[in-house]
Amino acid sequence: MKEIGATPGKHPYGGEMYTLPVLRDPNTGAIITDSWDIVVYLDNTYPAKPVFPKDTKGLICAFGAAYMDQFWPATKFPLVRSREILTERSAEYYLTTRQQYFSQKVEEWSPEGPERDQHWSIFEKAFTAVKKWYDKTDGKWLMGNTFSYADILAASGLFWFKMVLHDDEWKRLAAWHDGRWEKLLADVESECKYCATIQ
Amino acid sequence: MKEIGATPGKHPYGGEMYTLPVLRDPNTGAIITDSWDIVVYLDNTYPAKPVFPKDTKGLICAFGAAYMDQFWPATKFPLVRSREILTERSAEYYLTTRQQYFSQKVEEWSPEGPERDQHWSIFEKAFTAVKKWYDKTDGKWLMGNTFSYADILAASGLFWFKMVLHDDEWKRLAAWHDGRWEKLLADVESECKYCATIQ
Repeated sequence: MKEIGATPGKHPYGGEMYTLPVLRDPNTGAIITDSWDIVVYLDNTYPAKPVFPKDTKGLICAFGAAYMDQFWPATKFPLVRSREILTERSAEYYLTTRQQYFSQKVEEWSPEGPERDQHWSIFEKAFTAVKKWYDKTDGKWLMGNTFSYADILAASGLFWFKMVLHDDEWKRLAAWHDGRWEKLLADVESECKYCATIQ
Repeated sequence: MKEIGATPGKHPYGGEMYTLPVLRDPNTGAIITDSWDIVVYLDNTYPAKPVFPKDTKGLICAFGAAYMDQFWPATKFPLVRSREILTERSAEYYLTTRQQYFSQKVEEWSPEGPERDQHWSIFEKAFTAVKKWYDKTDGKWLMGNTFSYADILAASGLFWFKMVLHDDEWKRLAAWHDGRWEKLLADVESECKYCATIQ
């Protein structure tokens, strides 16, 4: 990132930290760090199909917070699973920083038994809340028939869970609410591929 | 409410509970319980100036959750103050139900000292988060130049705080972020009066 002249993001505890994603746009030479800023840049530069339609940046940012708030109390469960797919070197850094942040050994994050059950129960409640938001409008997207960055945020969480959870765990989640979460993820992936072709 | 044939809402712990607000529309005869349902009814019945513009019901519902999540950890402070403005009979019911819910005497909800300071600090962080959402778009509303129910939700919280906090406490809050919260409350009140005249 230093080599291409990308700016670092801010570390949550002060100072700078180089983070992915970073975008280098060959058409304009722009180099953008931070996923939100990248999306804002893309919306402004390639406005054929915006993902912040109709002045919804503030609402969608709040949606992202509401979505994270739902899963946050159970987040140590997917964090345990994330550790399992990392290379040894990454896992070492990951564990050092996260164990310090939580003041807890990884074995204590989401042990099987009552605590893991509790995390599952929080997950199920979280998806019930997200379903409630989706059910407020007609159409398959959060804004009815209008695709937006809110759907991408929702799918990003789902994509993370699908990537890191064990097969039987993902199947359990995917069975909730008539399979709508696996379907939402597939819909968003297919819409993003479609968007890429029309820009 | 029984007399006019209004339906009760659902009690959070099961069973039915009659709650305000309730709307009886003299033009149509409709009787609607629950503030969200009332707003949906009004938007559908009097569409001159909708407060859920452009399929934003789901996003605005999530905004309401995100807004509440911000203040929730400090909510016992305004709850203490709310008790002070109730009549004796209401206060008795209020205390019985809330003390049971929190398993805590009202004196322990937000005692002056480190705990109250913590609540103030949560409040300040909460408004900083809300400001971040408002700053995502141009214009004075959350959706830029488009007024919506999200602004009404934000103002409802502010209105509650203004009603129940002591004068010096409201002044402290109103001084944050260049006085934008008192201004937002005034803007929403004035917009709602304006809306009432054009329907």
